[in-house]
Amino acid sequence: MLRELFERKIQFNDILGLTVASLAPAGPQLAFAMRDELVGNFVHYRLHGGVISAALDTVGGLAVAVALAEKFPGDSAEEIAHRFNRVGTIDLRVDYLRPGQGKRFVATGRVIRLGGRIASLQMTLENEAGQMIATGAGSYVVS
Amino acid sequence: MLRELFERKIQFNDILGLTVASLAPAGPQLAFAMRDELVGNFVHYRLHGGVISAALDTVGGLAVAVALAEKFPGDSAEEIAHRFNRVGTIDLRVDYLRPGQGKRFVATGRVIRLGGRIASLQMTLENEAGQMIATGAGSYVVS
Amino acid sequence: MLRELFERKIQFNDILGLTVASLAPAGPQLAFAMRDELVGNFVHYRLHGGVISAALDTVGGLAVAVALAEKFPGDSAEEIAHRFNRVGTIDLRVDYLRPGQGKRFVATGRVIRLGGRIASLQMTLENEAGQMIATGAGSYVVS
Amino acid sequence: MLRELFERKIQFNDILGLTVASLAPAGPQLAFAMRDELVGNFVHYRLHGGVISAALDTVGGLAVAVALAEKFPGDSAEEIAHRFNRVGTIDLRVDYLRPGQGKRFVATGRVIRLGGRIASLQMTLENEAGQMIATGAGSYVVS
Repeated sequence: MLRELFERKIQFNDILGLTVASLAPAGPQLAFAMRDELVGNFVHYRLHGGVISAALDTVGGLAVAVALAEKFPGDSAEEIAHRFNRVGTIDLRVDYLRPGQGKRFVATGRVIRLGGRIASLQMTLENEAGQMIATGAGSYVVS
Repeated sequence: MLRELFERKIQFNDILGLTVASLAPAGPQLAFAMRDELVGNFVHYRLHGGVISAALDTVGGLAVAVALAEKFPGDSAEEIAHRFNRVGTIDLRVDYLRPGQGKRFVATGRVIRLGGRIASLQMTLENEAGQMIATGAGSYVVS
Repeated sequence: MLRELFERKIQFNDILGLTVASLAPAGPQLAFAMRDELVGNFVHYRLHGGVISAALDTVGGLAVAVALAEKFPGDSAEEIAHRFNRVGTIDLRVDYLRPGQGKRFVATGRVIRLGGRIASLQMTLENEAGQMIATGAGSYVVS
Repeated sequence: MLRELFERKIQFNDILGLTVASLAPAGPQLAFAMRDELVGNFVHYRLHGGVISAALDTVGGLAVAVALAEKFPGDSAEEIAHRFNRVGTIDLRVDYLRPGQGKRFVATGRVIRLGGRIASLQMTLENEAGQMIATGAGSYVVS
């Protein structure tokens, strides 16, 4: 259900071509393939910085959703969706380590702390060669 | 020339629908209209957080480019493009203040300090009603 | 009362030598003088980066406290202290713009948005010559 | 030599009581003991947020210094000191995860990427019970 939510129900995730690669609680993952539309550098064939930050922010939200589903195992699909709908990013940091070059990218989100009101996340973006393209950190309201 | 560079030559800016609204050195601006494709919340009609961060990061880069053009007034169009091509985001912070609701959004970038190697930026995103949707801060390499 | 709280009741503020310079709601200020103990660079006489971040974080908390006192004007001194005691920094960003040189420094905090649960702040640190030493942004829980 | 530099030659590190606990390149560490002077909360006995950010920023600088010493193994002690003197924090993020309670704290810095001009760091602060008090991320100029 989270998969469908993230891949189809959020328009911009569709534009980015994000697919849920893993819902493993330790580190949920989103993946996407390089496409012309995602390019940011007109000389080199590299991801736009905005695609990178979008992927990191989105996987952060996914990781929070998965962590909440784990914390409240009795929730129905409807309650999960409702709970996720109240998750919001407070702030986000992106560290751009290397140019976003590659064919396929995987964003991973790890919940560092899930509080009653705030969740603290760390995220990474790697290419298919395992190179670290970017890291991120974010604070999310979990309501 | 910067206008063409930002609006047409960078694919993802085209996806976002970013247009250069102002090249005023004190605060260059990019604008874009709300569209279904930019939505992030499947219940409410709001911008995806990734669209917000992308707009802030991009206007930061634009502001650096404008500041460099001001600092080196003798540069040819080619040198300006070359200099801009060496600008890269080191890191970015986005503060999500209010839901991204509105019809038209304006992102403004202000160079807080332009050093020989690093530029420090502050950015804002407002809707047509003047509501502050998000603020940002970023460090850019200016080579 | 807030003045006493910040200057005397918080040990580390005392170490830094922070004094409340202004409680103006638009931008409360803390000030401190340069001292050997605050030096971070053994070659040049400059503030330690940690003193800078401490001053920015503290003035952020002060600005939140002042904003809360404004929002709840009927509160007693005890309720103000109680409310402030529940304010906590979620995260903080510091941009180090210039070396911390000077005789006297002023940190200013501005509440960008005061929500029911979260406050978003922007802070600045200047020296007596009006030079911008550092800027900051922070998210605070206001409970 | 780095040990002496960090513990004795930087006044504010002395105030914080920072000692070099490890110079292991994978994750150099600084340690300090809880003291009344480091308290930030007048009701509970907890570290001031500024002490936390100071420790994280300082261990980030230490980690960069160690990484540079590793990268340039032929350097004399003087060259090492000279190279370190040109290291500067561009910006820093601190995520405050848990109240700073404990008897002894260890800050660890990990270089995520050491470029020719910029180093990207991640830092952590834990207490003696292994609880994660705070995490950090920072960008440093390595000149």
